[in-house]
This record gives sequence, C-alpha cells and structure tokens, in this order.
Amino acid sequence: MVERVFQTMREIVSFITRAIDEIDREQVARMIDLLVDVYRKNGRSKILVMGAGRSGLVGRAFAMRLLHLGYNVYVLGDTIVPRIGERDVVIAISGSGSTKLIVTAAEAAKKVGAKIIAITSYPDSPLGRLADIVVRIPGRTKISRGEEDYFARQILGIHEQLVPLGTLFEDTAMIFLDGVVAELMHRLGKTEEDLRAMHANIEL
Amino acid sequence: MVERVFQTMREIVSFITRAIDEIDREQVARMIDLLVDVYRKNGRSKILVMGAGRSGLVGRAFAMRLLHLGYNVYVLGDTIVPRIGERDVVIAISGSGSTKLIVTAAEAAKKVGAKIIAITSYPDSPLGRLADIVVRIPGRTKISRGEEDYFARQILGIHEQLVPLGTLFEDTAMIFLDGVVAELMHRLGKTEEDLRAMHANIEL
Amino acid sequence: MVERVFQTMREIVSFITRAIDEIDREQVARMIDLLVDVYRKNGRSKILVMGAGRSGLVGRAFAMRLLHLGYNVYVLGDTIVPRIGERDVVIAISGSGSTKLIVTAAEAAKKVGAKIIAITSYPDSPLGRLADIVVRIPGRTKISRGEEDYFARQILGIHEQLVPLGTLFEDTAMIFLDGVVAELMHRLGKTEEDLRAMHANIEL
Amino acid sequence: MVERVFQTMREIVSFITRAIDEIDREQVARMIDLLVDVYRKNGRSKILVMGAGRSGLVGRAFAMRLLHLGYNVYVLGDTIVPRIGERDVVIAISGSGSTKLIVTAAEAAKKVGAKIIAITSYPDSPLGRLADIVVRIPGRTKISRGEEDYFARQILGIHEQLVPLGTLFEDTAMIFLDGVVAELMHRLGKTEEDLRAMHANIEL
Repeated sequence: MVERVFQTMREIVSFITRAIDEIDREQVARMIDLLVDVYRKNGRSKILVMGAGRSGLVGRAFAMRLLHLGYNVYVLGDTIVPRIGERDVVIAISGSGSTKLIVTAAEAAKKVGAKIIAITSYPDSPLGRLADIVVRIPGRTKISRGEEDYFARQILGIHEQLVPLGTLFEDTAMIFLDGVVAELMHRLGKTEEDLRAMHANIEL
Repeated sequence: MVERVFQTMREIVSFITRAIDEIDREQVARMIDLLVDVYRKNGRSKILVMGAGRSGLVGRAFAMRLLHLGYNVYVLGDTIVPRIGERDVVIAISGSGSTKLIVTAAEAAKKVGAKIIAITSYPDSPLGRLADIVVRIPGRTKISRGEEDYFARQILGIHEQLVPLGTLFEDTAMIFLDGVVAELMHRLGKTEEDLRAMHANIEL
Repeated sequence: MVERVFQTMREIVSFITRAIDEIDREQVARMIDLLVDVYRKNGRSKILVMGAGRSGLVGRAFAMRLLHLGYNVYVLGDTIVPRIGERDVVIAISGSGSTKLIVTAAEAAKKVGAKIIAITSYPDSPLGRLADIVVRIPGRTKISRGEEDYFARQILGIHEQLVPLGTLFEDTAMIFLDGVVAELMHRLGKTEEDLRAMHANIEL
Repeated sequence: MVERVFQTMREIVSFITRAIDEIDREQVARMIDLLVDVYRKNGRSKILVMGAGRSGLVGRAFAMRLLHLGYNVYVLGDTIVPRIGERDVVIAISGSGSTKLIVTAAEAAKKVGAKIIAITSYPDSPLGRLADIVVRIPGRTKISRGEEDYFARQILGIHEQLVPLGTLFEDTAMIFLDGVVAELMHRLGKTEEDLRAMHANIEL
C-alpha cells in the first residue's frame, strides 16, 4: 500500500550513492581548508550561510553544526545577522545557482571582500561564476536543463513523480554537508562530546 | 585528504538503507491515510508541523512540500501560526521524543483535540505516548540510550565521530518524509508540474 | 541616572504625535478600502507582508493582527509562503524605500499582478514609485536625506544620539499600523473577543 | 472616514505618555547597569532575548539594536542560538508574565545560572517571580485582570475596540526599549555612526 514511500527512499539513497563519486575532491578540499582557516581565526572571522526555500533549510542544518563546532556562524534570515567583511566567508546554497535573491546577496558579500563558497548543481550559473570555491552537487533543479536531466533521469532512473523539484539536490546537499562536519571534527580535533557541550540548552 | 567526507556520506546512506526495513508499514499507512483525509477536508482542516533544532528544519522542509501539494500547513516558529482545533493535525518531530518544548506544545495540541503524528526514534517517549500515530525512525539521538546505541553502533558500525548527535535521525527523517511526499503525490493525483505551480514565486 | 531613557520615550511620543498630522488621509482610506475588499474575497485573496530588519518586524506584528482579524496572511521570510498572484496584496515596509531585497521582491510581486501597498518615508523612492498605494510615514531613515532630516531634527528637535537610524520610522509605523487594525476591526465588525478567538493557542 | 486610525494612534501615544511615569526608575537603573556590565565582559558574556508572538517581535527589534551596539546577542527562535550559562543574561518579554513556553525557557535559563531580566505588566507573575530584575511596563494583556484593566480602561480611557489584546503593552515596551538603547549609547560612548557601522550590510 505504501511501498512507494520506501521505493522513493531507495531511489534517493541510490542517487546519493552515485553522486558521491561525482563530487570534485579538489573543490571539497579547498572548502575544508578555508573552513579550518576560519576556525583558526575565530573571533575575527565569521561564516554567513544563505539559501532560499528548502536549500536554505539545508544550510541552516549545517550552520547549527558549525555552531556546535565552535564557529561564529550566522544565517541570512535570522534576526541576528552581523555586518560581514573581507575576513568572512559566505556559504551560499542553490541548486540552480540562479535564485535571484541569493545571487543578489552573494554579490553584495563579494563586493565587501568576503570569500564565497557555492554549493550548487550548476558551476556555470550566476552564483557559481561569482564564487571563489564551487562544490557541484548533482541534482535535478527546479528549472530543468538538458544534460542534468539526462544524468538524473536516464542514468539513475529517478522518476519525476517520486522526487519533485529540488528534492535530489537538497537531500544530497544535506548529507554532503554532514560529511563535511565529520571531516571538520577530525581536523579541529573535536569529539561528539565537544559538540554536545556547545548544543543549545534552551531550544524552541 | 577529504575521503572522510565521502566515507561519512556512505555510512549515512548505508544507515538509511537499513532503516528502510525497520520502519513500520502499518503506522506509515495510517499517517498517509490521515494526511489524505486532511487534504479532502481542505479549507476546514490544517496541519501544524513542529520540531526543535535540526529536527525542526526537517519538519519545515516537509511543510514546504505539503504547501506545494495544496495543504493548509503551518510551522511552529513562523510568524503566522493560526489557532488549531479538533479538525487539525500536528506533525511533531523529535528524535528523543523528549524535547521539552515540543512535548509541551504537543500536549497543548492534544488538549484542543488535534490529532498528533509523532516522528521519533522512541515510541515509548513522552511524545510517542501522547501521539495518535507514531512512526519510529531509527537513529541515535542526543541522549544516548543502551539498545538504540547498539543498533546504531554494533549492527551498523556507525562511528560517533562521523555522525554526531541526532544526525542519523535527522537525515533518515528527511528522506523518509520525501518518501511520504511521493506517496501523497500519487494518492492526491498531483504531478511535479502541479507542485511547481504552487511553489513560492517570491522567495527570500 | 536613567532619565535619558524616559526623555527618549517622550521624544519618540512627541514625534509620533506630530507625525499623526502628516499622514495623508486619502492614501490611508485607499489602503483600508483595499484591505476590506481583500477580506470580502477571503479564500481567494491573500496578503503578503514584507520588510527587512526592524521594518520587517513591524510588518510581522501587523501581520499577526491581520491573522487575528481572519485574513489569509503570510510573511516573507516565514517557512510557509505561498505563490502570489493578481488577486493578492503585498504590504511592503521600508523607511528609505530603497532596501534592495524588498524592492526586488516588490517588483516580482508587481510583475505577477499583485497590488502593492508601500509604507515608507519616501514616496519618490524605488518602492514608492512602483506601489499602487503609498502611505508616507515620517521618520529619519538609515541613509539621511536633506529635507527629511530637517523635519526630524529642526522642527521636532530629535537628536541623533537618542533615536538612531530608522527608530522614528519604525516606531511610528508600528503605531500607525495598530491604528489601521482599529479601523479594520470597526469596518469588519470584529470585537476584541473575535480576535482573541483567532489568536494562536500554541505559541513559541 | 479613517479618523479612527488617528484617534487610536493618539490613544496609544497618550497611554505611553502616562506609562512613562509608572515605570520604576530603580529597576531600569539595575537593568542598564547589568547591560553595561555585560558589554564590558563582551566575548565572555552574551544576551539571549526571548518572547512569544508580538512580544517576541518587540524583543527582536531590541536585539537588533543590541547587535548594533556591539553586543553578543541572540534571539530564541533564530536558527543560531548558542548554549547559555552563568555569565549570560536573558531578557524575557511577556505582558502577562505567564506565557507557558517563555516561563519554561526562562526557568531553564535560571537553572544554568543566567541572570533574568523580565519585561512584563505583572511582576507577581511566574516570569516576574523568577526574574532577577523586573521592569513593569503597564498594559492590558491578553488575559484581562481586574485592577490592570481599571488602569487601562478607566484612568486612561482606552477602549477595547481600539487597542485589542496586548497592543498597549507591546507598543509601550517597544518604545521603552528604544529608550534603553539611547541610554546604552550614552553609557557605552556610542554614536549613531558607530551603530550604522555595525548594521547588517546583507539584509533579507
């Protein structure tokens, strides 16, 4: 009766498994190095995470872990967002790389000298082109484009009716960023206990 | 250099794959039936999604898709949260099932007669016990408990240092709820195009 | 010792008192008529409130009251923001009328045919010019401009060190919009009891 | 036609004017001293602002100014909320002083040793009783209580139909906290230019 729920979960998991091999190690290494560097300068450098819609939620989930790791981190859309400058890093998440308000915000950040890390399916998008580091995460995005659709539909056999709109990008990005957390824990010498000690004790 | 990122992604994906078999089909069928029923009564019934921290973000991602499916849906923590009553449904997400403020809010909802769907690793938790429908999603949660840890650590071989705190629950819940979306699309006769037509056209 | 707190409160109150006479009755009447009309079409028309920073918070406070009055109302920045169209109304709040992301969002709304109500100190700003109805609320805004400063500083004798940045605009807009609520209660035949009956019963 | 809008504004302004004399200077002085002390320990002490509904929005508006003043400040309900401890200060805003989730959160904060400043109409409420510093701000609150109503209705002649629910408390608290900002600017030696320099340069 509800096997479609689990079939879809398997399709997503299968997509992510294949996506793992598609992600450019070189760009990920640059992203990790930059984040480690920010940590070393803590108190002077901060991170601003931004994304619209479900991509924004994926960004927020990552931002929470950065907080637990000890970063000065902020999220665009929160009440508290400090001024950013040239010592700061922006992490912008957008499947299409074309979400207008995110591109506008990333441009403003670049103008003041912040470093931009883009997480997107389209390195050649407006967001991808202005970023200093681009990690391409496969995924069909809201606005379908030829080749990417081929990747998603033909090779992986994912059907539109199971994973609508940006679902594959968002789920893959979520799990990729949890992978980044593991690497940062290792590089910064943090244990789970350290993260727990930074977790909010008053939570709504 | 950064292989830990991808090793972690594989561990998470492996965990989710095994979790698929653990999820109780009967409870999922009841959840889907209730949500289909709410849709049929649209305009009179609404859904309120709630969760704290990263679980709250997973709930928000699901709530956005419910909006795209045509539901009257709200998120606790948004500015706009209407009064709820006996015709309404609350979806509460908490790995431990013990997050104080979520339990408090779910109790308040139950008191006014709303139906409660709990997504949790612990059916025997305060949240699980008060819910009408409980979907157990495996996952180690913030407060480790014996048996569950065994599931996570021994059987699945997931190491604390790779997936800290509620990560496994949150990622599994995210993908489970995307599976629920696929089933709802089918049951409500919605295509991806229908969802796109409901997607926000002004997005921050 | 702390008399400056109360002196400032008196200055703000004095500013608002004088501002009351400055607000264009004709534009306010058009705003009220449009909002009454939206209410009559409830279920088919909705309201989207938007503003950045503290102006956004003033907008959210107004949006909550619109919810209590029975409107279908949404706030840009909430998780749940539906697609808007030509039957909908946008209320955009910006002291300067130049906040880039609000202007961008209002332009997008205008493009799909929504009616725009602007609450701003500058009718001749980008936001003011694109709006269908503009209610000018006096106030010094972030980017000082000659004449307005004269109004704020010379006539009213408000000192920069007491009410920095957009404070006067924000406080005046907050109380103006509470005035609009009173008028809407009257026009829609709502009592305080009706509003209380719509107030959230589960609140974070 | 719309004179009720302006009559209401005058009623609110008149209420605030009288409220100015009601506020206890001693408690305000203690609040300011504590906030100045937190500033001196910046980097080690932080502020967490909390409130539900419109009171929460008033708190957020104050939190933004604390950010502009150079504080480490956070808002309950934002994505980014760090763990708090005994060196930290909580500012809790609730007209009734009985909002369940705020009382619960304030209790949790007290338990870890944080100092609590309550802004409420009811010093003898659960929130008022647990706070270290209580600033009473007059206002009718959601749940009417005899004497306070007398203050609001008879002495001030404010009519229920003009300022429903917590309106008077919220507006008075907003302007009171803007008065606190002026005093803090003076005590910390900050100019408007200093605040502008801390204002977000990327704003949604």
